[in-house]
Amino acid sequence: MTGWYIQRGPESDVVISSRVRLARNLEEFPFPFKMNKDQEQDILVKVRDVVSGSKSDTIQNTLFVDMQSLNPIDRLALVEKHLISKDLAESQRICGALISRDEKISIMINEEDHLRIQCMFSGMQLDSAWDLCNSIDSEIEDRVSFAFDNKYGYLTCCPTNIGTGIRVSTMLHLPALVMTGYIKGILEACGKLGIAVRGIYGENSEATGNMFQISNQITLGQSEDEIVANITNITFQIIEQERTLRNELNKRNPFRFEDRIYRSFGIFSNARIMSADESLKLLSDVRLGINMGIIKDIKMETVNEIALLIQPASLQKFAGRPLSPEERDIKRAELIRQKLGSAKE
Amino acid sequence: MTGWYIQRGPESDVVISSRVRLARNLEEFPFPFKMNKDQEQDILVKVRDVVSGSKSDTIQNTLFVDMQSLNPIDRLALVEKHLISKDLAESQRICGALISRDEKISIMINEEDHLRIQCMFSGMQLDSAWDLCNSIDSEIEDRVSFAFDNKYGYLTCCPTNIGTGIRVSTMLHLPALVMTGYIKGILEACGKLGIAVRGIYGENSEATGNMFQISNQITLGQSEDEIVANITNITFQIIEQERTLRNELNKRNPFRFEDRIYRSFGIFSNARIMSADESLKLLSDVRLGINMGIIKDIKMETVNEIALLIQPASLQKFAGRPLSPEERDIKRAELIRQKLGSAKE
Repeated sequence: MTGWYIQRGPESDVVISSRVRLARNLEEFPFPFKMNKDQEQDILVKVRDVVSGSKSDTIQNTLFVDMQSLNPIDRLALVEKHLISKDLAESQRICGALISRDEKISIMINEEDHLRIQCMFSGMQLDSAWDLCNSIDSEIEDRVSFAFDNKYGYLTCCPTNIGTGIRVSTMLHLPALVMTGYIKGILEACGKLGIAVRGIYGENSEATGNMFQISNQITLGQSEDEIVANITNITFQIIEQERTLRNELNKRNPFRFEDRIYRSFGIFSNARIMSADESLKLLSDVRLGINMGIIKDIKMETVNEIALLIQPASLQKFAGRPLSPEERDIKRAELIRQKLGSAKE
Repeated sequence: MTGWYIQRGPESDVVISSRVRLARNLEEFPFPFKMNKDQEQDILVKVRDVVSGSKSDTIQNTLFVDMQSLNPIDRLALVEKHLISKDLAESQRICGALISRDEKISIMINEEDHLRIQCMFSGMQLDSAWDLCNSIDSEIEDRVSFAFDNKYGYLTCCPTNIGTGIRVSTMLHLPALVMTGYIKGILEACGKLGIAVRGIYGENSEATGNMFQISNQITLGQSEDEIVANITNITFQIIEQERTLRNELNKRNPFRFEDRIYRSFGIFSNARIMSADESLKLLSDVRLGINMGIIKDIKMETVNEIALLIQPASLQKFAGRPLSPEERDIKRAELIRQKLGSAKE
């Protein structure tokens, strides 16, 4: 596997990934929820045409993925990689996505807006993600007219995206903030600053492996650069707090700390049946153990690969066939052991 | 380590050890609780003298261990090996034990009775234990007069031992009977048959690693051979039931079964802090896993050695210094990893 999500980026002890997406609509078409089939088709053709004529190799070489031609498992696997949204996967429209080979770029067509241009990087690379996103946006804008209002800026289907149409986010691994309960203060502070925080896979943070996505809620009245700088700034403050707490926890009782890490690792690498929830919880401890230098012989790349592959659709693609939930729990445990090199069979 | 308790004996998938002990008193002395220091000393000298003049090398070569000369940890280590009783370890009398090099024979002097002749074998070897015990008894009786009554047989300090003075026991590992709850029926049936059943290290069977000792309660009105045959018979019935249940549990849901075994193994081989109770519980699953052929690369001898060494006194002897309970929990986890060859430091 070679996708960006396997690699370690800057500050990857806390920051899993950085993402920027822009919402754009073509001036001459109604918003997607008002389009007819012909218009849906027209948009697809037009956008693919623009992209294939790009001066940039990266953009030109994106691969068009037609949603209608994919089976549900393949569609869900793209959702699990954050390459498309759940809405696009389940959409009844003629729709699709242009995805770069390294999977850093994904341009969804006919989702909530005509275009959702998204760039993702591993670790803390918001600037790179924004630069790339911005350049794709400019390239496309050179050849089409986006719906734009001089007072409000870019017009979007949902008013919460109006103005810049930008959503800037980082995905953070915050086990020490959760263990100590200090995460509550972070959540409150973010709320006051107009920053949204959410668990990646659900509401209960422990069950989601202590992963949190922070993103801007405001898209109007601030420039893109300001929004990127704001999220960057807050992310670095959270990184600092998380790192301090990790060291304090470890210092206070190193045996207790190591014991927690290694118990999780022991179960993770030996179980024969494992639910998605449990695997995320254990994975969080293993990730922490590697980042703290406690677990030395497992690469973070392996952990990243496992984190991706243990999700339901990816797991079924890996197995090469549809699996019942019970079969998935068995296959998940098998995959983990195999990837960790601890499979005994 | 070379003691009998490390080896696997017959039926060792269920039977850990077989033990026979005889309670004997010398005719010319009062019972221990009525003796003065001179008499205590006289008995010691007399018994050591008889034993050192034995025609049998095994008996002659037993080593005299003087309780007064041992520190509390060394005394407790002998208790943990079942070579002496807790009462002897804590006794204020002049007392000691003659112990053979292979630790199969232990003759306690001035415990509750003047002599407690005990033979222990690994696995199901009650006949061998009884034969050896019987031959030692005969040898000693050739040279001393035991307190004996024509109507009641051998006289013992406590009336529950009177007659044959024999206690015949097997130590059994019964995880499947505990898991299924059928152990209750066994306990009831044994009670009705005059068989005592008890957890080895305490009352709560789960916390004691599913280990049970069964032994005769009646010493009067039956011959030694009958008592040995009776315990043998009941032990084999329990072995059968335990084996059947293990196979049924495994057959019913092999993944669930393996999962339980390997989760325990994962924690056992990775934890950094481990209480005595938890280690016995996990050890039970690991033992079961090896016996079921699920865990293949760990020898039962290693498990037997660990089972012995993780006890408080043995652990401190292994560490070479006294340890606080917290230190013991850390040392115990360290020892387990070292013995399993999974220590990473």
